Amino acid sequence: MADLEKALEKQVSRRSFLKTTGIGLGVAAGALVLGTGVVGAQTTQAPGAVPEAALPYVELDPEDARLRGHAAYWKAGCSYGPFYAVVSMLREKVGGPYNQIPLRMLGYGRGGVANWGTICGALNGAAAAINLVAPDADTNKLVSELVGWYTGFAFPSKEANAIGVAGGFKYDEKPYPKLELVTSVSDSPLCHASNAKWIAKSGFLLPTNERKERCARLTGDVAAKAVELLNAWKAGKFVATFKVDDQTASCLSCHAEDQEGKMACVSCHEPH
Amino acid sequence: MADLEKALEKQVSRRSFLKTTGIGLGVAAGALVLGTGVVGAQTTQAPGAVPEAALPYVELDPEDARLRGHAAYWKAGCSYGPFYAVVSMLREKVGGPYNQIPLRMLGYGRGGVANWGTICGALNGAAAAINLVAPDADTNKLVSELVGWYTGFAFPSKEANAIGVAGGFKYDEKPYPKLELVTSVSDSPLCHASNAKWIAKSGFLLPTNERKERCARLTGDVAAKAVELLNAWKAGKFVATFKVDDQTASCLSCHAEDQEGKMACVSCHEPH
Repeated sequence: MADLEKALEKQVSRRSFLKTTGIGLGVAAGALVLGTGVVGAQTTQAPGAVPEAALPYVELDPEDARLRGHAAYWKAGCSYGPFYAVVSMLREKVGGPYNQIPLRMLGYGRGGVANWGTICGALNGAAAAINLVAPDADTNKLVSELVGWYTGFAFPSKEANAIGVAGGFKYDEKPYPKLELVTSVSDSPLCHASNAKWIAKSGFLLPTNERKERCARLTGDVAAKAVELLNAWKAGKFVATFKVDDQTASCLSCHAEDQEGKMACVSCHEPH
Repeated sequence: MADLEKALEKQVSRRSFLKTTGIGLGVAAGALVLGTGVVGAQTTQAPGAVPEAALPYVELDPEDARLRGHAAYWKAGCSYGPFYAVVSMLREKVGGPYNQIPLRMLGYGRGGVANWGTICGALNGAAAAINLVAPDADTNKLVSELVGWYTGFAFPSKEANAIGVAGGFKYDEKPYPKLELVTSVSDSPLCHASNAKWIAKSGFLLPTNERKERCARLTGDVAAKAVELLNAWKAGKFVATFKVDDQTASCLSCHAEDQEGKMACVSCHEPH
């Protein structure tokens, strides 16, 4: 550590160090809320640890999130995308603790968690970013709304298609297919269903660049929607609107307590 | 920031500050890998940001992970559980960058992502922890193996049941049901299926403390398994063993490219 310190002192003054990393905020605030994230008596309550509370949020630009999410998809996948989009903007606008959160940590969500086809990775990455800035109860409401919106939305959005056709995804470092893509509604938050439906409609198979571009635009769309929801929430104007469909509501009238979830029942089960 | 700095200087010396937060490591290392996590030309490459590379891993105790995961479930849910378990141990054994990663950020995964019933939250939280310590390609292999193992495992494990019956979950701060719990195999990585199958077998409905205790023990089991996989990987001994079942393999022989995923097909689809 001594050598690292010396190297560090040559590079940055203490003041600029604290400003850039924001670690002073973390430590000072941490001193006030010590131990709130620590379970049990035998675990260490590190005095320099980041506070276990929602981090500061400021209004962000959904259109910038759309561009960043799209570019980040092509870099490290669908789940990295919205997490990168939101956290990279918060690094620029807030800095501090966001600089110490590895952007790559949501990469595992790609393809519905390591290509298992479960939760859409874009939803997973966006949800993690929401959790960083919102307290737990608000996180649940915002994430549930985002997931519900996703299940009924025709991806990719007309905004993403328009940007794509015009070659306007400005952050991208390599070429991407610039055609107009057909849209599909997944009726499900699962990567498996979302991809299968779009592939059936478009004719572009999973390994094609067109299918990947569809998921890149979807990733941008989910990042933009997450930012819209967070902006509304920050302004005190967030209202949850998602409701399960009538068929599912009918199922849940008997099956509220013998399962967990809000996915459309008849996607997998026969009605009875 | 000036006031925060003054407050900070009263609390900790520069040396102990750097040691505890580990931020010196992040900055010094960050200087070597500037910008690796940043997409595009218009984004800021913060010089004090944590490096976008896998963080250091040291061998951890799976049995301690089981206890921490269980306790953390009762604090903030199934997805928080394994993430807390692994990262809190790494804070103690490695410190540094782990102190700056909010433990609460995986909470959103509860109940299969904000109670939607998609990916089991314990898998989601464990996968995020794996992503922190393993490069992307290794993360995909490790997470896929963890998910595959989960789909065929009878939860809760005999180890977790034995600890539970003996009242040995030492980190827990409040009482938990101490009975022997029946086990079930989910045949799926989804919270919805995992809970529905256990509820059908046990007769304990979703809101009961017994069902929650089942998920708490499962959370501990997933945390322990994640640590076992990481230890093997760190020792250069990890070998992926999961294979999809014969029926699913047969489906995939035609459907490898028109969908994404490894979930058992006949859970939702009729064979044809």
